[in-house]
Amino acid sequence: MPVSAIDSLLFRNLFGTPEVRALFSDKSYIQRCLDVEAALARSQSKLNIIPPHAGEAITRACANLDVDYDRLSDETEIVGYPILPLVRQLTAACGDGDGDGEGVLQMKAGLQIVEEKLRALVATLGGLAKRYRDAPMAGRTHLQHALPVTFGYKCAVYLSGFQRHLERLGGLRPRGLVVQFGGAAGTLASLGSGEEGLRVRKALAEELGLGDPVITWHTARDGVAEIVSFLALVGGSLGKLAMDLMVMSSNEVGEVSEPFVPHRGASSTMPQKRNPISSEVILAASKILRANAGLCLDAIITDFERASGPWHLEWVAVPESFVVAVGALSQAEFALSGLVVNTKQMERNLDSSKGLIVAEAVMMDLAGHIGRQQAHDLIYDACNETIEAGEGTSLFDVLSQDERVTGAISKAKLADLCKPANYLGAAGRMVDNVLAFRAGSSGQPP
Amino acid sequence: MPVSAIDSLLFRNLFGTPEVRALFSDKSYIQRCLDVEAALARSQSKLNIIPPHAGEAITRACANLDVDYDRLSDETEIVGYPILPLVRQLTAACGDGDGDGEGVLQMKAGLQIVEEKLRALVATLGGLAKRYRDAPMAGRTHLQHALPVTFGYKCAVYLSGFQRHLERLGGLRPRGLVVQFGGAAGTLASLGSGEEGLRVRKALAEELGLGDPVITWHTARDGVAEIVSFLALVGGSLGKLAMDLMVMSSNEVGEVSEPFVPHRGASSTMPQKRNPISSEVILAASKILRANAGLCLDAIITDFERASGPWHLEWVAVPESFVVAVGALSQAEFALSGLVVNTKQMERNLDSSKGLIVAEAVMMDLAGHIGRQQAHDLIYDACNETIEAGEGTSLFDVLSQDERVTGAISKAKLADLCKPANYLGAAGRMVDNVLAFRAGSSGQPP
Amino acid sequence: MPVSAIDSLLFRNLFGTPEVRALFSDKSYIQRCLDVEAALARSQSKLNIIPPHAGEAITRACANLDVDYDRLSDETEIVGYPILPLVRQLTAACGDGDGDGEGVLQMKAGLQIVEEKLRALVATLGGLAKRYRDAPMAGRTHLQHALPVTFGYKCAVYLSGFQRHLERLGGLRPRGLVVQFGGAAGTLASLGSGEEGLRVRKALAEELGLGDPVITWHTARDGVAEIVSFLALVGGSLGKLAMDLMVMSSNEVGEVSEPFVPHRGASSTMPQKRNPISSEVILAASKILRANAGLCLDAIITDFERASGPWHLEWVAVPESFVVAVGALSQAEFALSGLVVNTKQMERNLDSSKGLIVAEAVMMDLAGHIGRQQAHDLIYDACNETIEAGEGTSLFDVLSQDERVTGAISKAKLADLCKPANYLGAAGRMVDNVLAFRAGSSGQPP
Amino acid sequence: MPVSAIDSLLFRNLFGTPEVRALFSDKSYIQRCLDVEAALARSQSKLNIIPPHAGEAITRACANLDVDYDRLSDETEIVGYPILPLVRQLTAACGDGDGDGEGVLQMKAGLQIVEEKLRALVATLGGLAKRYRDAPMAGRTHLQHALPVTFGYKCAVYLSGFQRHLERLGGLRPRGLVVQFGGAAGTLASLGSGEEGLRVRKALAEELGLGDPVITWHTARDGVAEIVSFLALVGGSLGKLAMDLMVMSSNEVGEVSEPFVPHRGASSTMPQKRNPISSEVILAASKILRANAGLCLDAIITDFERASGPWHLEWVAVPESFVVAVGALSQAEFALSGLVVNTKQMERNLDSSKGLIVAEAVMMDLAGHIGRQQAHDLIYDACNETIEAGEGTSLFDVLSQDERVTGAISKAKLADLCKPANYLGAAGRMVDNVLAFRAGSSGQPP
Repeated sequence: MPVSAIDSLLFRNLFGTPEVRALFSDKSYIQRCLDVEAALARSQSKLNIIPPHAGEAITRACANLDVDYDRLSDETEIVGYPILPLVRQLTAACGDGDGDGEGVLQMKAGLQIVEEKLRALVATLGGLAKRYRDAPMAGRTHLQHALPVTFGYKCAVYLSGFQRHLERLGGLRPRGLVVQFGGAAGTLASLGSGEEGLRVRKALAEELGLGDPVITWHTARDGVAEIVSFLALVGGSLGKLAMDLMVMSSNEVGEVSEPFVPHRGASSTMPQKRNPISSEVILAASKILRANAGLCLDAIITDFERASGPWHLEWVAVPESFVVAVGALSQAEFALSGLVVNTKQMERNLDSSKGLIVAEAVMMDLAGHIGRQQAHDLIYDACNETIEAGEGTSLFDVLSQDERVTGAISKAKLADLCKPANYLGAAGRMVDNVLAFRAGSSGQPP
Repeated sequence: MPVSAIDSLLFRNLFGTPEVRALFSDKSYIQRCLDVEAALARSQSKLNIIPPHAGEAITRACANLDVDYDRLSDETEIVGYPILPLVRQLTAACGDGDGDGEGVLQMKAGLQIVEEKLRALVATLGGLAKRYRDAPMAGRTHLQHALPVTFGYKCAVYLSGFQRHLERLGGLRPRGLVVQFGGAAGTLASLGSGEEGLRVRKALAEELGLGDPVITWHTARDGVAEIVSFLALVGGSLGKLAMDLMVMSSNEVGEVSEPFVPHRGASSTMPQKRNPISSEVILAASKILRANAGLCLDAIITDFERASGPWHLEWVAVPESFVVAVGALSQAEFALSGLVVNTKQMERNLDSSKGLIVAEAVMMDLAGHIGRQQAHDLIYDACNETIEAGEGTSLFDVLSQDERVTGAISKAKLADLCKPANYLGAAGRMVDNVLAFRAGSSGQPP
Repeated sequence: MPVSAIDSLLFRNLFGTPEVRALFSDKSYIQRCLDVEAALARSQSKLNIIPPHAGEAITRACANLDVDYDRLSDETEIVGYPILPLVRQLTAACGDGDGDGEGVLQMKAGLQIVEEKLRALVATLGGLAKRYRDAPMAGRTHLQHALPVTFGYKCAVYLSGFQRHLERLGGLRPRGLVVQFGGAAGTLASLGSGEEGLRVRKALAEELGLGDPVITWHTARDGVAEIVSFLALVGGSLGKLAMDLMVMSSNEVGEVSEPFVPHRGASSTMPQKRNPISSEVILAASKILRANAGLCLDAIITDFERASGPWHLEWVAVPESFVVAVGALSQAEFALSGLVVNTKQMERNLDSSKGLIVAEAVMMDLAGHIGRQQAHDLIYDACNETIEAGEGTSLFDVLSQDERVTGAISKAKLADLCKPANYLGAAGRMVDNVLAFRAGSSGQPP
Repeated sequence: MPVSAIDSLLFRNLFGTPEVRALFSDKSYIQRCLDVEAALARSQSKLNIIPPHAGEAITRACANLDVDYDRLSDETEIVGYPILPLVRQLTAACGDGDGDGEGVLQMKAGLQIVEEKLRALVATLGGLAKRYRDAPMAGRTHLQHALPVTFGYKCAVYLSGFQRHLERLGGLRPRGLVVQFGGAAGTLASLGSGEEGLRVRKALAEELGLGDPVITWHTARDGVAEIVSFLALVGGSLGKLAMDLMVMSSNEVGEVSEPFVPHRGASSTMPQKRNPISSEVILAASKILRANAGLCLDAIITDFERASGPWHLEWVAVPESFVVAVGALSQAEFALSGLVVNTKQMERNLDSSKGLIVAEAVMMDLAGHIGRQQAHDLIYDACNETIEAGEGTSLFDVLSQDERVTGAISKAKLADLCKPANYLGAAGRMVDNVLAFRAGSSGQPP
């Protein structure tokens, strides 16, 4: 019975998905080890280092190997890592044995899933940005009403981050998805002192669909740390999204809620509850990804030609990061694609400050008439008066009693200035720009 | 097939032990949930809140429940946490449903294992400290020879840290191992507005062998974070030990090696290797424990009466921390109880600086004759001369040529001063003090 | 001009206080170094190791030393740490020179400030808990209304955490505030091979008001890490408090606001703003403290008799942690001691769900009449009906139309059950218990 | 008197440099604020939003402003951030006031310094790689001798990481160095509802030499976190380098030492010491950078249109990260550019295992004659025999007695195979490739 939350029967589908779990499972890891062995044999056959048929034979052996997991587990405990015991079962040639090759293949496939999820999220956020481009709501800074925005604008801001993440992903792949093959100390000595080693590495890279490095990188692990840091950056953007959704879902704000599925986010004793469980899992995921990025930064600091300890950190942090990142992306996709958006409540909240939220609008206009500092002081006092007057009184009510204001601005103009939905600046244009960028064929931000 | 390193067939016995895994497995978690339900029912029976036989009946039902794990897993995914789905299977009364009670029981049993491992380690280190009390070796600061110490002294310093950890463990239990029972918002409202709720909680605490809190603590989670921080502190001390062992095991230093088991720490292509695999795992564990302590500090920052997100962090970090901490303690016990200690090599290294390591001894003595600053400058120059003279020349050789020295100190005295094993200060006495403390009945440090 | 936020002219009073900054300033550090030197000299005079008057003379020299900071700075850069250059300026005897002694004195004084701030906070929270013991408000889990609580209950839960922190502080002092004196490798060799070294250390401990260790601890640094972890735990509890205050301060919730000081939390262009700036700083502080606790856990993993690198982490993390912790405690004290509590708004929010928040109360009562599962299903449907009915309809309205309910419960009883303020369980009693504990003379939790 | 280690008179030149400190000082920050104000005014003048001369006038005012720092400090404490108080002193137009614009300018200049330091380090490492291309030494995995490498190969591996860092730097600039200008909620509402806002932003971006974003990014802070994560990746690579240098500097290994400067890394009482203080500071820096990257990941998770708390984390983490990263890069440059390399000792260590380090070489050759498994077992036994035989006996001695070996391989061949310097594989070729890449004009890795 599993212990870890990502394997737990209870929690695993909250934190991950079957697809990404399958990719990073023991079985898949072993399979990738065998894939590397087979690819290596084929490369060596091609280069006539081993007989032509040997590559085929070993490929077949790898495909048909019935792994004895119990023996593998026992021997791994003794040896300290699994390649040697696995090779014993295979009785095949193994030139490397450091378990990095397998990991790169897993990361490559993992990044593929991440990219698909990112693209889906970009599409979903694009849809929301477009649909709610002109739906006004309160913009909040320090959790206080600041100025009006639109829900579409908010979604476009989220979206812009995920556009950058896709760009990052494009940038890091050539650095990180590079074949690892060098023998124990990285010199490829077992393949001779000439070009053979480098030729085999190149052929192996081609067989595996990976990059061929300038030099052995197993002790220069910035590429792995960059990938896990990238997942943590994605987690950060997801966490920001989740934080917003969660507070917007609270009873008092009530602007959105996660998709309703019977009994989802329910309580045994509080039947009225609709907990934003996707957002909660995402928020937790963002912290777990941050912690794992830290571990992979530690893992760069290896000693000499193979780390004593730091390496193990990747065994823990890399699979967990991929599972948790894909899980969080899936939760975000679920939450957003079925998001219940209450534009009525957004407007109600926007109007709840009785015009205070557009005090700036009036101040800016008034400044043109009576000077900036005086306008500021006048509006500042009017805001305080509105707050103290309580329920029934709006900023317009207070200002329309003030001759310094009415002397400068007509009542009709003042009423317009006091309407939050009139003070949205370039929000809509920016949404359009983000959507245009998304649709753009260049693949590069301006 | 598992994904996480602590569940992985390949890696799980490196990072943990079967005992601690069993304790934090899904099955054990569910069992603890049922234990809490049963204990609650018995408590309510005792207090006549439910019929006297109901407590017994529910206890029996809990003991015999054949959990449908697939259904539980599916429903947990929908609800967001497992208690409600479990209770549905039990059709039993459930007053709380927040899943904290179970966790406390697991942590209680986990700390019991940690204590046993700590006590074993204290005993093992005590044995080493005693045995090697007078075995001189180079003390190193900044990885440079500094002054002589003994291997027993080193072990006693390690030991003193684990003595403090046992004391910490005693201190934190009453704060952290406290029953959690309060209903959704902590007020115990479903049990009435009088004393009933508090009485049930007290009885439940007794049934479970836990403390009874002053007030509901599910949103004041410093107790959980303190426990995981404690495990990280233990991890730190283990990491320090592992770092020392690893460098001492390197070929050039060669002072210790981890126990030899055929093929342990072996390489498929480098038959000469004896990798210090326990130390490596311990070093990795110390970093994982640090990261998890950080997550549990995040988890304190819950919102209102139940966290949205932070809570989930404990689901990940608490079990992993216990598994990894117990795993690291076991690896340390294995490495130390069979440690190969090469006192000959220790002496060889100690003497390798040709007396430079006790330059301080001569300087201190000389200062009494010619003044501190002059002694310092003279010795400083002599050290440089010794270094430059190369292989055959010792500090004694250089100093015994210097009339300022020989005018103040006899050659015999100088020879004694230049012998590293003569400059051990109070190292032995301190070892005795640590060992005496260990044997002390008070349980309190002086 | 400073760079660090804790020294920055702009930010330093947000993150810290003048008092704690003074304690951890360069000048104070140097002064503590001199204090240790002087105390050591006095100790040695007392034990006749140096002439009786020398202790006095060195004490005077230390008191009157006019430190040349420029020279000290330059030489520190070359040597790598400041003790040696400082001692050169003092030309005094220096038996240790590792800079730990000074640090312990700073931490001792720092913990004193922390204790005072904690006690003030406990008093303030106690006052709030008492005053608002019976002020009902919505309890929220997952940011959704869950069950009623009182604001006093919330404060008492916060308070209970700080009570535990005071207890922790008592427990860790004897472990962490221990004199560090051992010479380069910890053996006290420069003081001879007999009891002298241990006697000097004991006398020095007394002079400095610190504990005397069982053995040199400079490479067993769990005591320092425990102190910084403790500050991080305090930061966590403060962060939870700040998170609650901040969401409660939002326009839509509007239940509290930080003390109003003209222009505090203001915006140049949004005169209506009242940003919860203390809470924001506290939240940031909690994360900084978490990060520093992680660094001090790294710092335990020293190599051999003096760390190469890890030690430096404490130079960064320890002063910053004390400054930021004291700053956050001060911000919390400021925010809470002048907190504007809007009990009217709390009631309004509590009633806003039209009785849904006490659906559990009705369900529990109804369960006694028609069985738990049936009661749950009936209430679940009634909640949905109430939600869908919109504005004007309450849970009472729906339930009082349902014969299955009215057949079991009288309308008057039903009305009582639907009143949130009637469903507070043992909240008030728990507040009393926490306050009684606070007033308790024992200093120990039950 | 400063508190923080990066400002401390004692420690600041260990952790940073005057150049980078000046860049992130309060004064520089204020200057950048004024630069943004002036650039904004010029942009608005250009676009005829304010009178043509106003831009010039404000630019002059900004250049000549005599900032009252005391007042600024006091008011910042009240307001919560410095822009509003600064603008009060300027009495200038301020459309934004969120303090992000300034930060981007500082980061831009900071990355410039980082790039220069990286380029210097790449050159220095290139020199070492070239010079020591064929200097054999022991390759070590798990701190155990594994296979021979060359010191030039080691340097080329380090170098390859810094080449990737330069590439990363090129990739992240367009994402992170983007103007921040949007007003309180990001909509640019104060500049009207048409294109004006976007036009001003574009002009401002040009004035400041920054990118123009697709949409306001102040709540999508992945760009900042990416920069600080990048610095942490650089820190990781530096930490790996430092770890290697430090262990190689230890007495027993003795292969390199940091540049000797009189009294550098010295001890008051141990005149023989040469502590690797640059490496130590670098190792500490790598951990500090990791911790700060974590804080900036937290800082992404802002709430709504301006973070309550998370934002503050960047005030702490960004300046500290730049100072510490530049400091560590400078320390690395210092240590490497004057590194004392002891190739004699490298050879001595390489030969110290009496041929065991090339057991693989013999095994590989022998496998061609007697089969892989048999070769492995034979060599495995021969290694054990060599170890047990002690001092005088080499692997060659043992193998040349074994007829199964001598039957297959001539003694001369065997002697060659047992010579470590003959088993370097493609190490030299890889060095050439890295150096060629460095010199390459493409700027892109293959």
